Amino acid sequence: MKCKMTLCYDGTLYSGWQKQPNGISIQETVESKLCQILQSPIPIVGASRTDAGVHAKAGIAHFSSPDLPPLSELQKSLNALLPPDIRILSLQEVSADFHARYDAKAKLYRYRVITDRVLDPFMRDYALHYTYPLDFEIMREVCRFYEGTHDFRSFTNEGLSTYSDKNSVKTLYSVSLERTKSGFDILYYGNSFLYKMVRNLTGTLLEMGRGKLLLSDLEGIFAAKDRRKAGMSAEAKGLSLEKVFFDLREISLDNQSSSGLNEFSSLSVKAK
Amino acid sequence: MKCKMTLCYDGTLYSGWQKQPNGISIQETVESKLCQILQSPIPIVGASRTDAGVHAKAGIAHFSSPDLPPLSELQKSLNALLPPDIRILSLQEVSADFHARYDAKAKLYRYRVITDRVLDPFMRDYALHYTYPLDFEIMREVCRFYEGTHDFRSFTNEGLSTYSDKNSVKTLYSVSLERTKSGFDILYYGNSFLYKMVRNLTGTLLEMGRGKLLLSDLEGIFAAKDRRKAGMSAEAKGLSLEKVFFDLREISLDNQSSSGLNEFSSLSVKAK
Repeated sequence: MKCKMTLCYDGTLYSGWQKQPNGISIQETVESKLCQILQSPIPIVGASRTDAGVHAKAGIAHFSSPDLPPLSELQKSLNALLPPDIRILSLQEVSADFHARYDAKAKLYRYRVITDRVLDPFMRDYALHYTYPLDFEIMREVCRFYEGTHDFRSFTNEGLSTYSDKNSVKTLYSVSLERTKSGFDILYYGNSFLYKMVRNLTGTLLEMGRGKLLLSDLEGIFAAKDRRKAGMSAEAKGLSLEKVFFDLREISLDNQSSSGLNEFSSLSVKAK
Repeated sequence: MKCKMTLCYDGTLYSGWQKQPNGISIQETVESKLCQILQSPIPIVGASRTDAGVHAKAGIAHFSSPDLPPLSELQKSLNALLPPDIRILSLQEVSADFHARYDAKAKLYRYRVITDRVLDPFMRDYALHYTYPLDFEIMREVCRFYEGTHDFRSFTNEGLSTYSDKNSVKTLYSVSLERTKSGFDILYYGNSFLYKMVRNLTGTLLEMGRGKLLLSDLEGIFAAKDRRKAGMSAEAKGLSLEKVFFDLREISLDNQSSSGLNEFSSLSVKAK
């Protein structure tokens, strides 16, 4: 039986989604509790490998087992054993060919920026505190530039050699700014994301907003395919995986309910 | 020069506001940073002694010093030295006779209850997770009963002998339920509060809501002046000091902007 898992986590204390030698990952924490319940080691495949300190509101994963208890019971048992910063929101039976990563058509990441002079202590692990004066008109221009299909190699921290021209080309369906009480969020809807891509796009956007980088350089930054040309990597704690889409039609519904500052491009992917 | 301090803190890691031999308090943390900056030990007097794990959105304190740097600089220095779970929201010069505790006319405490089946991991330190079926009509009745002037000795964990009849009589100007996306908040506007009073009132309200205690017993619980007659003490983490009022007229403005479920009693204090 194959099972789709929706989970929410506060990534603050973890080394990211993926298992690794140093540090405790979300993946191994969930796998160890699943193993404890089912008395058998079961690998979990996640749709998205969030970095250390990055959060998820509704991450998706899958696992298979020949024999599972009723899923509502399994969910209760998992939540009873898991630390309170990880919760299983739902478990759902899926067809044998479902794959959390390969079937994911798009993802929505939210990057939260707080511009208040004094940072709300309750937000200290969930936002970037950024108090430079910002030009929102320029930042909206940057968002519009980001949208569409590009080679994003200048925005990943993986070495150049890791990517062929083909697999560093990604599509951002929509990038928008959404005002909040204490600052703004940047919403990234995209088909797939390179390592640290959202954080590097965000850092570059902010540095253009405050005038440290120039909007007119953006084309050159993309063309350089060189990480050193782009702006800083925005801190992990501001980033959250909000949603994974398995049907592209869902995005447009999601997008319409959002109240971004941008005029949404209604998903017409503009190749640049 | 006397200074009024407004501060916000996440109480999760602290032993409460007040200095004590075991554990780190908010008060000593702020005092130690103030001492570090001013090179002189300065005692801080708080309006409210929040318990271990209780939060504050806008707590008030005062301190005096013959010689202070410009207050905006002092605020910056304090926030730079303080851990990120405590922030000074403002510093303001006040008259020499101002006293944070004695001059406080009223306080607003918010108790947050989450009734969702699965607790949002981001709320794990900021709400009570309570999933019993609840009768809101009964809970609204309990709120109405709480309002007014009563002897609250059945709702404090201090020993009976600590209080004279006089100083355990307190007035709650308004107690109301406010629906939230994931449950509800209980808002307590009162002139002053006994040790653990809000948590004990909340525990009793919840136990009446789920039918473990009977509304008809409430009068007897008050009359008994015995802590053992009332309900459980609701967990500290759900409680937050929202505001301290130095002028009673402010409460009624505050109250009007709130969208409670209760018909507000427009501050007509009903003695029962």
